[in-house]
Amino acid sequence: MNLHDQIVRIAREAKQAADSLAHVSTDRKNAALLAMADALLARQAHLIAENARDLNAAREKGLPAAMIDRLTLKEQTLAGIAQGLREVAALPDPVGKVTGMWRRPNGLLVGRMRIPLGVIGIIYESRPNVTADAAALCLKSGNAVILRGGSEAIHSNLAIAACLTDVLGAHGLPAAAIQAIPLTDREAVHEMLQLDEWIDLIIPRGGEDLIRAVVSQSRIPVIKHYKGVCHIFVDADADLDRAVPICLNAKTQRPGVCNAMETLLIHAAAAPAFLPVVAGRLREAGVLLKGCPQARALLPDLEPATEDDWSREYLDLVLSIRVVADLDEAIAHIRRYGSLHTEAILTENYTRAQRFLNEVNSSTVLVNASTRFSDGFELGLGAEIGISTTKLHAFGPMGLEELTTTKFIIYGNGQVRT
Amino acid sequence: MNLHDQIVRIAREAKQAADSLAHVSTDRKNAALLAMADALLARQAHLIAENARDLNAAREKGLPAAMIDRLTLKEQTLAGIAQGLREVAALPDPVGKVTGMWRRPNGLLVGRMRIPLGVIGIIYESRPNVTADAAALCLKSGNAVILRGGSEAIHSNLAIAACLTDVLGAHGLPAAAIQAIPLTDREAVHEMLQLDEWIDLIIPRGGEDLIRAVVSQSRIPVIKHYKGVCHIFVDADADLDRAVPICLNAKTQRPGVCNAMETLLIHAAAAPAFLPVVAGRLREAGVLLKGCPQARALLPDLEPATEDDWSREYLDLVLSIRVVADLDEAIAHIRRYGSLHTEAILTENYTRAQRFLNEVNSSTVLVNASTRFSDGFELGLGAEIGISTTKLHAFGPMGLEELTTTKFIIYGNGQVRT
Repeated sequence: MNLHDQIVRIAREAKQAADSLAHVSTDRKNAALLAMADALLARQAHLIAENARDLNAAREKGLPAAMIDRLTLKEQTLAGIAQGLREVAALPDPVGKVTGMWRRPNGLLVGRMRIPLGVIGIIYESRPNVTADAAALCLKSGNAVILRGGSEAIHSNLAIAACLTDVLGAHGLPAAAIQAIPLTDREAVHEMLQLDEWIDLIIPRGGEDLIRAVVSQSRIPVIKHYKGVCHIFVDADADLDRAVPICLNAKTQRPGVCNAMETLLIHAAAAPAFLPVVAGRLREAGVLLKGCPQARALLPDLEPATEDDWSREYLDLVLSIRVVADLDEAIAHIRRYGSLHTEAILTENYTRAQRFLNEVNSSTVLVNASTRFSDGFELGLGAEIGISTTKLHAFGPMGLEELTTTKFIIYGNGQVRT
Repeated sequence: MNLHDQIVRIAREAKQAADSLAHVSTDRKNAALLAMADALLARQAHLIAENARDLNAAREKGLPAAMIDRLTLKEQTLAGIAQGLREVAALPDPVGKVTGMWRRPNGLLVGRMRIPLGVIGIIYESRPNVTADAAALCLKSGNAVILRGGSEAIHSNLAIAACLTDVLGAHGLPAAAIQAIPLTDREAVHEMLQLDEWIDLIIPRGGEDLIRAVVSQSRIPVIKHYKGVCHIFVDADADLDRAVPICLNAKTQRPGVCNAMETLLIHAAAAPAFLPVVAGRLREAGVLLKGCPQARALLPDLEPATEDDWSREYLDLVLSIRVVADLDEAIAHIRRYGSLHTEAILTENYTRAQRFLNEVNSSTVLVNASTRFSDGFELGLGAEIGISTTKLHAFGPMGLEELTTTKFIIYGNGQVRT
């Protein structure tokens, strides 16, 4: 069978599986998820051996240490993955939930009921844990999933997926509900992205290059974010003692993630008191600071920030700092250079806090808290399948509900339209 | 300026207008809508004169009478359009609504707030009323709109849009929030569909050919339905006296629309009693009937239905009829030949009614009512900008809320992530 036919077969079987999975009870899905957690631990030795094949190949290719680290499956990693599956089993099932019901003047009772999207394609890079995490969220929400991980993790991903699929079979669920593409050719991704007849949604997870490539090729709707250029605006009326730890947390607690702060905006009235203190603490934490001319007038040893720096996602211990005249200038800066991801204002001023929440239309806006809270678990969604910075269907962190849609259900008693 | 540059300018100005319109109060938007209704009536003579230019051209081109009818603006049509704008003014504004708010264990108060999508492109065919209807719904939901109507209605559409834009200006709102593309070249649509940097959503309204052309060209998300192959299943336990008027209503009340019934499925146990009666009534109403072999065994003068007929949207007084063994066969038929639009079951059996509502995942499913209720106004959404049969973002009739998305808003008091 050629590559095109193989991918089409995977997609068709996924669609069939999705049709049947949409009506499986929560209890049966949960039982399968718990059994999957057990199966991953029972096959631990096999999974680590398959992972070693990927690791050997990675070392031979001379992949960077950080990538090899992300690729590595240890006992502890597997225990974490299994725990994740158990937590998904414990979450409420969105499918079948009636989100509202109302009576029409003619007596019709109209409601909206959550149903799965259908078939979801996940395209990701080197972390093999995504294979289990994404499969669990799709299964719980009644969707079939097609997993296409990075070629460097192929043995790990196939071994994990086989483990999950075996459990589906043993529980009388369609094995094609979880499929990992066994082909590492780039062409396989391209073929997959054409199959809008059977695949309902694509979620790419990885770097901006991967995501741009997926968007440009796909005929299927894609939910994604390219990058997170997240801002904190320290207002004139900020509580500066509280602002310092928040800025430090947003920049340094995990600098390589999309909800870390990349640009700090400081009200001109707060800058003389705040900038030297926060800069000192950030530098102690190893952060390289770049500033606008006004910031450099206060702290001459800041590196000059270039025009390009205002839209950069460093994903590293680097921060751009700009002094702004007021809230309006801060909002205008965010609108011009931001990525619609996450922005925070630190202030004790009621009106400006409310204005920031209302007027900044990024996917997550906060008052007096770290940007790092822009995360499905932290916001209380129970899980996170990804973050969207495009407004269609989902905006911001996506949990199980975002893997569903609603249909209208109508109880009548003989109504006709006049 | 070349065509590409003209369309880019329209899109950029729309984006700017959208940024400012997103924060305009409901009162100001409503005042503009009411003034627009008045302005359309005040300029009635001018609008009818511009419409006459389109009508003359249409007659010269020999366009069919039905199309000329859809194209015609009369005093009565304009009164209806003005009334429509007033009704949109009276609807609740979805923007700024907080759809939920919850407390996290660390004290963060997390909510979701509705915000506009941004810039919406509407691509439609010959009805000039869409110009005003769509503009009103977009304005009310805080979105800028780019309207691209059919070339045969160009003078009517531009005259209506100019009237609306003048009101925007007079009310201090950005005139670029409502723009009609003054170019009739097909190339203009193609250019518009590439501008995903500024346009957030495309809604095509018209025949399947138009919609397929838009989908195949667009880089921007498209919400659409290709067609409505809507089914009614008359169960063994249907109340046959109530089933006849429902079937008649679904087929004949307005046969040219997407929520009209196209296929009637009848349980084998009900067919001998029901089929002759309903067929008689449908024929009296001028409906041509086509049947499966089992139906023809009961009524030999039915035309034979071909395999293709089961997926046809007649949009006319024609109906396909199939006798099925049971509910499972009815559901399997709908899954195979349906278009995910609207399906109804007529039954007095509780379990089968519930099974149909749960297991048929079309965008609207009804018990004991006509498929014609699948409509934004009828379902209580207050308005309808279109119907979606793709599951992303919206599924089924779309009202004002479907022209918005939600952002997360978070009230903190110094929280950092650990």
